[in-house]
Amino acid sequence: MSYQDFTNEEIETAMQQAWEAFHIYRKFSLAQRAAFMKAIAIELENAGDELIQTVMRESHLPEARMRGERARTIFQLNSYAEACERGTWLDARIDTAIADKTPPKPDIRKMLVPLGPVVVFGASNFPFAYSTAGGDTACAFAAGCPVIVKAHPAHAETSEMVAKAILTAADKCNMPKGIFTHVHGTSFEVGKALVMHPHTKAVGFTGSYLGGKQLFDWGNQRKEPIPVFSEMGSVNPVFLMPEKLDTGASEIAQQYAGSITLGVGQFCTNPGIIIGIESEALKTFIHDLGKAIQKIEPALMLHQGITENYKKNKGNALLQEEVHLVAESEYLQGSETLPKLAGIPTIATATGQAFLNNPVLHQEVFGPYAIIIRCKDMNEMIAVAKNLEGQLTSTLMATDNDITENDKLVEAVKNICGRFILNGVPTGVEVCLSQHHGGPFPASTDSRFGSVGADGIRRFARPIAFQNWSNVLLPDELKDENPLGIWRTVNDELTKAAV
Amino acid sequence: MSYQDFTNEEIETAMQQAWEAFHIYRKFSLAQRAAFMKAIAIELENAGDELIQTVMRESHLPEARMRGERARTIFQLNSYAEACERGTWLDARIDTAIADKTPPKPDIRKMLVPLGPVVVFGASNFPFAYSTAGGDTACAFAAGCPVIVKAHPAHAETSEMVAKAILTAADKCNMPKGIFTHVHGTSFEVGKALVMHPHTKAVGFTGSYLGGKQLFDWGNQRKEPIPVFSEMGSVNPVFLMPEKLDTGASEIAQQYAGSITLGVGQFCTNPGIIIGIESEALKTFIHDLGKAIQKIEPALMLHQGITENYKKNKGNALLQEEVHLVAESEYLQGSETLPKLAGIPTIATATGQAFLNNPVLHQEVFGPYAIIIRCKDMNEMIAVAKNLEGQLTSTLMATDNDITENDKLVEAVKNICGRFILNGVPTGVEVCLSQHHGGPFPASTDSRFGSVGADGIRRFARPIAFQNWSNVLLPDELKDENPLGIWRTVNDELTKAAV
Repeated sequence: MSYQDFTNEEIETAMQQAWEAFHIYRKFSLAQRAAFMKAIAIELENAGDELIQTVMRESHLPEARMRGERARTIFQLNSYAEACERGTWLDARIDTAIADKTPPKPDIRKMLVPLGPVVVFGASNFPFAYSTAGGDTACAFAAGCPVIVKAHPAHAETSEMVAKAILTAADKCNMPKGIFTHVHGTSFEVGKALVMHPHTKAVGFTGSYLGGKQLFDWGNQRKEPIPVFSEMGSVNPVFLMPEKLDTGASEIAQQYAGSITLGVGQFCTNPGIIIGIESEALKTFIHDLGKAIQKIEPALMLHQGITENYKKNKGNALLQEEVHLVAESEYLQGSETLPKLAGIPTIATATGQAFLNNPVLHQEVFGPYAIIIRCKDMNEMIAVAKNLEGQLTSTLMATDNDITENDKLVEAVKNICGRFILNGVPTGVEVCLSQHHGGPFPASTDSRFGSVGADGIRRFARPIAFQNWSNVLLPDELKDENPLGIWRTVNDELTKAAV
Repeated sequence: MSYQDFTNEEIETAMQQAWEAFHIYRKFSLAQRAAFMKAIAIELENAGDELIQTVMRESHLPEARMRGERARTIFQLNSYAEACERGTWLDARIDTAIADKTPPKPDIRKMLVPLGPVVVFGASNFPFAYSTAGGDTACAFAAGCPVIVKAHPAHAETSEMVAKAILTAADKCNMPKGIFTHVHGTSFEVGKALVMHPHTKAVGFTGSYLGGKQLFDWGNQRKEPIPVFSEMGSVNPVFLMPEKLDTGASEIAQQYAGSITLGVGQFCTNPGIIIGIESEALKTFIHDLGKAIQKIEPALMLHQGITENYKKNKGNALLQEEVHLVAESEYLQGSETLPKLAGIPTIATATGQAFLNNPVLHQEVFGPYAIIIRCKDMNEMIAVAKNLEGQLTSTLMATDNDITENDKLVEAVKNICGRFILNGVPTGVEVCLSQHHGGPFPASTDSRFGSVGADGIRRFARPIAFQNWSNVLLPDELKDENPLGIWRTVNDELTKAAV
């Protein structure tokens, strides 16, 4: 199935409608927004097996994964809807007047209001959870913003079906025309036109560095700059601390063979660099990881572009003089029969010195690939940590002793990441309020916000302070009697009480 | 008194020291940060009359204003210190593990951590409250960030004295070397070098559009882009609604004569555009405002650059064919004796149509100047509101009827501003949590954050999520027992209880 790129005229119409919808939708109550989001979740479920078959065909991802991802997307919509209605994210604050202060202190009340139409770019590696009705879309609707989705061409038909589910829900909930628009586009001009349109007030993106950085630059080059939240992935370093490695090299190797190859390595949280200190235990780890990787069957990657990039970037890494191949999937032996889109699990290794000297080794190889960096001692491990760019996640495999005795390493690792994992794997991103899926640049363009969890709603809202308004004229969220029963900070104290 | 511009070598040294200080200071407790901020407040008080005399000489602002501004700056430091210690701003969130979920849900806990060294540019119009030890500096210290202040050349000696107060406090509180650096610079190269330095992680600025936008562009053009919070002022439109004006044109005129000329009009919240609908009441308002303005004595502006810009921009506005002078200060009559730096209070008027057709009339004239826009009807007033750029504040002078009967106008005005005032004046920015001093671009570069009130602390911090950490290894803020007694969201419920 192929779709025509949107023309400039169609984009103009879509943005005009989104702008008009914004002025209606932003006045809808939290309950109305939540009901709309829950209705989308129901329509996604209603899309049934046909949706699953379609996404499997387009993405080459297996059925269990896609059923799980749809369930996760439905959970996102429902849980962000609940968070929306709970209203804590509004950061409602009330300071009551003090007439006898000099000068008199006025009554001031503040809450978040929506920014305006949000453009969301679908991600190829999450056809449901980070695409058409995914996390960015759910956050924008919760914030009170209309959404314009640019479908990812790799799953345009899936995207079209999800868009229909959203529009059906919109219809059932009496949403204004323009609340949601689905835009097809394979050329970069479509994306640029959407980002540059004066009615666009924010952008959400999950994908490659090149794509995300380009959108960010466009957003800042506008006459009126807008926030662009690009989540651009990272190498998610894993530090194998000495005591821990001594006691469990083989187990960790098994655990990581699974994490490195999960979903053919196509997760932003895929562990791409594993750092250890030269030792017998590290040798065991490398040996066992290699053995495990050999036994993992290559699977189909998402699309041709990703597969070609994987081959190219992996080839480039392995071409570096200091990099040695440890193991590839044994299924390589019948490689002439391997499908063109297969991503071959691969492990390589290099020294800490090589890593410090060669920036090529820092680069993400998106796919089932990891490089093990062998440091000569803890000081070199610290140097490696300080040399790493911003990351979505960092992981320590460590005993309590490893942690307490290596404060410098722990602090250096903490300083570069958005999520800091102890004795686990970075793949698997739990959807909950305490989650943070973001990180210092270049992991994301704004380290202060993440794209998983209901705190992501705040990306698409701004504060407004009402000064000296009478109770009857204030929005419900800020009225004396707290009719919505939300948490508010009243004269510096958090409370649900009336004023 | 004149100071040498910092050399590149001095900037490099300062940034290295700030970077080293960051790694120490970010581990200091909330209580230690708060104690440091309170110590600065004490040293500011200790700087005594000499500081007041110095700032009066450099800024030409009167004694009462400067004593008041110092008191406000001390209040900011103390109240942000209390907010820092209260810890609600950390957005601590805890989701506890659910072992029997498929896959098992890990324990995840999130809080804000400091970004890194923050560069603050002093503002000429607030030598205390938005300069060396001002709001941006206080927020950065609360967040856990070292600060590098670029002194405003117009009050370099005042800035030097305040810097000494900060360094004395740092000494008394055993702060690390590099926690605070005071940089002089009259050339733009000094500012650029500070913003572009790789160790700089955020920038705070209050001042002109040209200056603030330049810093923002530099921040985004870096290899690692950083957030630049420029508060760039606005024209702060005031809408005179028909019923309200009918009942009190003269009183409103008196009130606004004071607001327009307060501090020689040198506030970012100075009302620069007043919009009414043609009527007898509007004629009365214009007449009475003109009379009142005639009686206000010109006072000295902050420095030569500001005075010259005021004359130039006002001259340019009055040159427009459609703009008519209403009144200037009568003290003009002795103009040959007027000091060179005097800012002459001035009122002009134009039609709504002229405003809609001529973008020159939208521009801020920084100083004691306002233009009254006479609309032919409510529809034209709405068109004017929709044509306005982003604003720090908007004000409605309105009865309840005016509000409820003119929803379109109210919504259009609300959509462009950060603070929405009813029946008051925009000048006078109360320092409290519910305050919002910021607004849609070009009022500020990031409408989601403001520079007054303790919520400004969040500008300089980012979330980090700890996954699967044992209680003993977690930061105090996230430990089960909640030793700091802060508000936290535990499994979606706000509470101070232990886990």
